[in-house]
Amino acid sequence: MGRLVVSCPDRPGIVAAVSNFLFEHGANIAESGQYSTHPTDGRFFLRVVFHRAGLQAMREELEQRFAAEVGRPFGMEWTFTDPGVPKRAAIMVSRYDHCLLDLLWRARRDELDLEIGLVISNHPDLAGDVRSFGVPFVHIPVTRDTKAEAERRQVELLAGNVDLIILARYMQILSADFLDAVGAPVINIHHSFLPSFAGAGPHERARDRGVKLIGATAHYATEDLDEGPIIEQDVVRVTHRDSAEELERRGADVERTVLARAVQWHCEDRVLRDGERTVVF
Amino acid sequence: MGRLVVSCPDRPGIVAAVSNFLFEHGANIAESGQYSTHPTDGRFFLRVVFHRAGLQAMREELEQRFAAEVGRPFGMEWTFTDPGVPKRAAIMVSRYDHCLLDLLWRARRDELDLEIGLVISNHPDLAGDVRSFGVPFVHIPVTRDTKAEAERRQVELLAGNVDLIILARYMQILSADFLDAVGAPVINIHHSFLPSFAGAGPHERARDRGVKLIGATAHYATEDLDEGPIIEQDVVRVTHRDSAEELERRGADVERTVLARAVQWHCEDRVLRDGERTVVF
Amino acid sequence: MGRLVVSCPDRPGIVAAVSNFLFEHGANIAESGQYSTHPTDGRFFLRVVFHRAGLQAMREELEQRFAAEVGRPFGMEWTFTDPGVPKRAAIMVSRYDHCLLDLLWRARRDELDLEIGLVISNHPDLAGDVRSFGVPFVHIPVTRDTKAEAERRQVELLAGNVDLIILARYMQILSADFLDAVGAPVINIHHSFLPSFAGAGPHERARDRGVKLIGATAHYATEDLDEGPIIEQDVVRVTHRDSAEELERRGADVERTVLARAVQWHCEDRVLRDGERTVVF
Amino acid sequence: MGRLVVSCPDRPGIVAAVSNFLFEHGANIAESGQYSTHPTDGRFFLRVVFHRAGLQAMREELEQRFAAEVGRPFGMEWTFTDPGVPKRAAIMVSRYDHCLLDLLWRARRDELDLEIGLVISNHPDLAGDVRSFGVPFVHIPVTRDTKAEAERRQVELLAGNVDLIILARYMQILSADFLDAVGAPVINIHHSFLPSFAGAGPHERARDRGVKLIGATAHYATEDLDEGPIIEQDVVRVTHRDSAEELERRGADVERTVLARAVQWHCEDRVLRDGERTVVF
Repeated sequence: MGRLVVSCPDRPGIVAAVSNFLFEHGANIAESGQYSTHPTDGRFFLRVVFHRAGLQAMREELEQRFAAEVGRPFGMEWTFTDPGVPKRAAIMVSRYDHCLLDLLWRARRDELDLEIGLVISNHPDLAGDVRSFGVPFVHIPVTRDTKAEAERRQVELLAGNVDLIILARYMQILSADFLDAVGAPVINIHHSFLPSFAGAGPHERARDRGVKLIGATAHYATEDLDEGPIIEQDVVRVTHRDSAEELERRGADVERTVLARAVQWHCEDRVLRDGERTVVF
Repeated sequence: MGRLVVSCPDRPGIVAAVSNFLFEHGANIAESGQYSTHPTDGRFFLRVVFHRAGLQAMREELEQRFAAEVGRPFGMEWTFTDPGVPKRAAIMVSRYDHCLLDLLWRARRDELDLEIGLVISNHPDLAGDVRSFGVPFVHIPVTRDTKAEAERRQVELLAGNVDLIILARYMQILSADFLDAVGAPVINIHHSFLPSFAGAGPHERARDRGVKLIGATAHYATEDLDEGPIIEQDVVRVTHRDSAEELERRGADVERTVLARAVQWHCEDRVLRDGERTVVF
Repeated sequence: MGRLVVSCPDRPGIVAAVSNFLFEHGANIAESGQYSTHPTDGRFFLRVVFHRAGLQAMREELEQRFAAEVGRPFGMEWTFTDPGVPKRAAIMVSRYDHCLLDLLWRARRDELDLEIGLVISNHPDLAGDVRSFGVPFVHIPVTRDTKAEAERRQVELLAGNVDLIILARYMQILSADFLDAVGAPVINIHHSFLPSFAGAGPHERARDRGVKLIGATAHYATEDLDEGPIIEQDVVRVTHRDSAEELERRGADVERTVLARAVQWHCEDRVLRDGERTVVF
Repeated sequence: MGRLVVSCPDRPGIVAAVSNFLFEHGANIAESGQYSTHPTDGRFFLRVVFHRAGLQAMREELEQRFAAEVGRPFGMEWTFTDPGVPKRAAIMVSRYDHCLLDLLWRARRDELDLEIGLVISNHPDLAGDVRSFGVPFVHIPVTRDTKAEAERRQVELLAGNVDLIILARYMQILSADFLDAVGAPVINIHHSFLPSFAGAGPHERARDRGVKLIGATAHYATEDLDEGPIIEQDVVRVTHRDSAEELERRGADVERTVLARAVQWHCEDRVLRDGERTVVF
């Protein structure tokens, strides 16, 4: 099994070129999704899952040929991935345990195509929980004064070692330098239905405003706090009876579900970035 | 059948006083809901539905006695209503027909406890549709220059004649003077999930932001556009494939459902205002 | 714009063959979905939407070439359709108006890719409503004794004239003979969440069983009542307070939404039959 | 704080009697819900939460007076409970861990008004997980031959020691003798949306039938497998692409949420049995 993800300027012949290439190299397409942002002047996105006996042995050659015959001629960005190789992930977390534990459970149950190699926290509280899963836990405290140094240590642990970083309610803002240096996509879970109630204390504000649904948003982290391409969102119904604490509790259930979905879709290479938006196949 | 809706400062004995009063006057409680905003220092809200043979004949006396024995001693705001008497409603609409037609159908099918006595529009387009339901349609054009005069004419038609005004996608801002003069609650449907995308063009902005759910909000209209106590909200799932037009179409389905729910709850006296929020029993 | 829908035994090279054919004939793929029921031994389903200038003029030739070069060699069942040509549909209905009105109204506002050419009912009640949309209404009463004759008259009106028949709460069982003779797919809306509460009186039985959600199911009609491939389902939350009538009312909202979705997906050629199941692209 | 739950034949004066009693004994009603199955000939259900300083000290006396003055005269079944005293619960489980872990974790973060005193399993697999939460784990194997003996041992551990038994995917049928002897309500989670797909293998059957939603049902266990009053249900959307394993995985998320809600509502005394149905306040 192999997976090929492509984006490029749209023009006629892309699907024919890719499917011919795969057919000629003995691959059978099992699943595919495609999308173009505009009928005549758009950007084209493609995700193909294919079977090919002996793929491992010929992988490098396949990729080189694809580059020469299809990728470069069409001006593509492309990636071949192996669905059998789970993504290497690290989780960053502060004190709330719900998203963290949910990911650890799901990973242990093989519900997620990833291996959680490391958990980093700015608080020591969750060390026992994490280590009981056989996952290393590193405590890196962060204060205003030590933030740059703390990020340097985080990057040392992460850069090159992981394919994905998951902020499972990590309550520190990451600098643009960190995002550059770490060299892997970062998925964040925001405890509100963005763009409503961006920023801190969303549940208090949701209660004050008397909303009837609260939600959560999983998105790729960017420099701008509470911005970045949205991967998944969901909501849950609330009433005037729910206190801010109850909203937070109900919100926690949505957060962990939304984050788990976003992470799994990312690990299956279903999420492609289209500027400030995502294409989710 | 009778309905009693009460709000007052919370203190011990309210429920006992109300239920004693009803029992002593031969009423049997069929349904009740209550809520207090705070255990010791809150505001108390109560809605009771009761059976009482011969209620019509003794109604006025009952209300006077309630005022003297319960209402005034507890500092209550209260209303007795008769579930058998539908609320008299007017609809204000511009050009979009989906909320209007949905309300007219539901009213004809006796799904809503109201009688739609009048539709007012700033455009003539929907006259035929409205009149085919046997409902009068009045076209009152509104321009910047004629707005004050148009509102005056609207108030003439509405004040004293209706118990409820429904803005079924009426695309004009109502002045504070209008809201004062019209003397009846006004329910508006906003075509987004407030507080996200308040203002115009929510579907374009939702698409640009790449959100994965879009919604609608029914609320009591106040001077502040896109503010006012929220009665009901709901959302529908969308994807990167949906154009702004498709978002609008899917949004329209949510709008009409949310508005119909809010209107029916209002007509059943289930919605009590608590400052900027609502209590929905 | 053209649409191509294919199903055939799965084997390598199908996508390459189809996309080459389209590319060589000047067509640009705008959207495609594919699915195989099994990695090695399954049935393959494909739906492609493509752009091709001057398609109308060369359509017949294109179809013949496709048959010769791709369709027959791969043992395909295939259809080319023109998205610009709406399906011709008839609606059959008894007395409930909610699904009927919803379809007529959506068709009028161009939300559905179909033209409703005829409404047939076994009751005269809805004639006025239907005709107010400019759609012919034919009353064909059905009794136990006249059923065969009634179906003969229905077939006379329908066979060859429509591409789709929609049962919008038509409360008569259609015979296998009718389904054969009418020669067009029939979509039914069942007022329960199949396979729960198949048969009559689902809302009473749902209430007796104390379920917390009720639903609706749109499916292709087959000889077996309440069977047939499911196209779409949805549910709505209910409580112990809801009477069977209220369940029916809430159910009606789900029915019209579910039926409208199923009909539109069918009209967009998104629904492919896979034995007793459907593939919905 | 105290909680009073009542059911009795409906007749005038119940609410007045209860609220007078509470007022005269210095209790202030914080929250109440009531429901009657029929306007004239029904069964009446009431749940009241009240504040009363010094309740602990006078509790026994209060209950005796209530029995004499209200409970017996109205033919009530009633219970006073103390919201500050969590219910003592045991969990029975086989090999699936998702519902078990979810309950243990929610209990630890004080989301549930219960104390999990014991986990019993017919398999040893989950011992480590359970004990890591500081909860005793007892392995009681069950075979066809040892079932009666196993149930005897289970009853020994449970009867008198717990207020609630939760079957968190316990894959053995409990005998009527067990249910009698154990003397506490038993909540079961069924891995389908009852009454659809009662019995074993619901996800395979759901897939074969091509349903578009799958669900889970929490209900009180009775002798009849897959029957018993339903407390809560929910569903999740699935497609033709989902294998039976994926349906099971998605189902697992619904199961744990539905079970947690049902357990918490039970612990808050919100669930009253009405024959084969439940009233959920």
